[in-house]
Amino acid sequence: MGRTSDAESKILTAAHSLFEQRGYSALGVAEICKAAGVPRGSFYYFFDSKESLALAVIDQHWAAERSEWERILGGEAEPLRRLRHLCEATEAEQRAGQDHCGTVLGCMFGNLSLEMSNQAAALRERLQEIFEAQVDMVEAVVIEARDRGDATTPDARGTARSMVAQLEGLVLFAKLYNDPSRLSTLWPSCRALLADPAFEDSLAA
Amino acid sequence: MGRTSDAESKILTAAHSLFEQRGYSALGVAEICKAAGVPRGSFYYFFDSKESLALAVIDQHWAAERSEWERILGGEAEPLRRLRHLCEATEAEQRAGQDHCGTVLGCMFGNLSLEMSNQAAALRERLQEIFEAQVDMVEAVVIEARDRGDATTPDARGTARSMVAQLEGLVLFAKLYNDPSRLSTLWPSCRALLADPAFEDSLAA
Repeated sequence: MGRTSDAESKILTAAHSLFEQRGYSALGVAEICKAAGVPRGSFYYFFDSKESLALAVIDQHWAAERSEWERILGGEAEPLRRLRHLCEATEAEQRAGQDHCGTVLGCMFGNLSLEMSNQAAALRERLQEIFEAQVDMVEAVVIEARDRGDATTPDARGTARSMVAQLEGLVLFAKLYNDPSRLSTLWPSCRALLADPAFEDSLAA
Repeated sequence: MGRTSDAESKILTAAHSLFEQRGYSALGVAEICKAAGVPRGSFYYFFDSKESLALAVIDQHWAAERSEWERILGGEAEPLRRLRHLCEATEAEQRAGQDHCGTVLGCMFGNLSLEMSNQAAALRERLQEIFEAQVDMVEAVVIEARDRGDATTPDARGTARSMVAQLEGLVLFAKLYNDPSRLSTLWPSCRALLADPAFEDSLAA
């Protein structure tokens, strides 16, 4: 059993890296097994299909990212500082990925959303759940900030969605231009979204 | 020659639709030819490879989108109204795509950026040029708005980048949730980015 558990872990690690670098569609089970150094039979002992492997990779990646987001957003600092810290940690993570792999890898969930969301119902559902959870986490801190008078947005959930969208959009550019510093405007942009002057804006429709 | 030109157009149309619905990696030349109803020999008469076809599809899509952006952003209305119109047109376009295909197709350039930017240098370069052109077009209107006192951002280019990133991030969610109304917050978010209260914000680093 020690050896088989090891094989599962090797498959997950190899698949994680390959999905990040080359996406989902371009990969086959044979190539994943080869990169993992395990026989193809082992693959089907642990996973029904490439899609079930992708779900396991997504879950593992989200478990790690969620605990990092919880650590940052659940801290003792003022709410705006926690949100700013999340922005900075996002840039730092993309920079670390670039240092390690030579190219900015982007957000696995965003990558799979644009590559796969029209095609694989199970992946889409999981990705939807993850982004909803991210919006929940950000929204809670936006509400805290508003309660202190540090944010004026009347729509905490809408603002949280816009902040996560801003993160995804800038990560897309960081990946496309292979430049993590594209994320340096994430916090100023989020700060602007938190203030939401449109609330008081009288520009007619 | 009439027939060969027709074949090229059929290939481009079929590839455009297939790339939008299923991405790039998952498709082969044979499948594209089958959908286009042209023999494989015709394909290689017009295109060296799937990548050169993708470049042609991107160029064709951008030519159409660019002229639409120019029409909207170059109009006579006040600059903020033109920017708002661009936001609304983006939502309307995704809604039309959903009505036509059953699923929100997203932005072809964003989709290919996340699927392919680490892998195909020529595609990456073209996509970079397109997004720079989009930022140029938005920036020009941001400067107009600022000159009139309708926007306070000190960094017109940074704000234009944030606006295009917001568009891409929200389009990602519209696609993932198959819900064009995710784009209904695009204009309020852009309005907030244009005001950029962070400029006068004194929150220390």
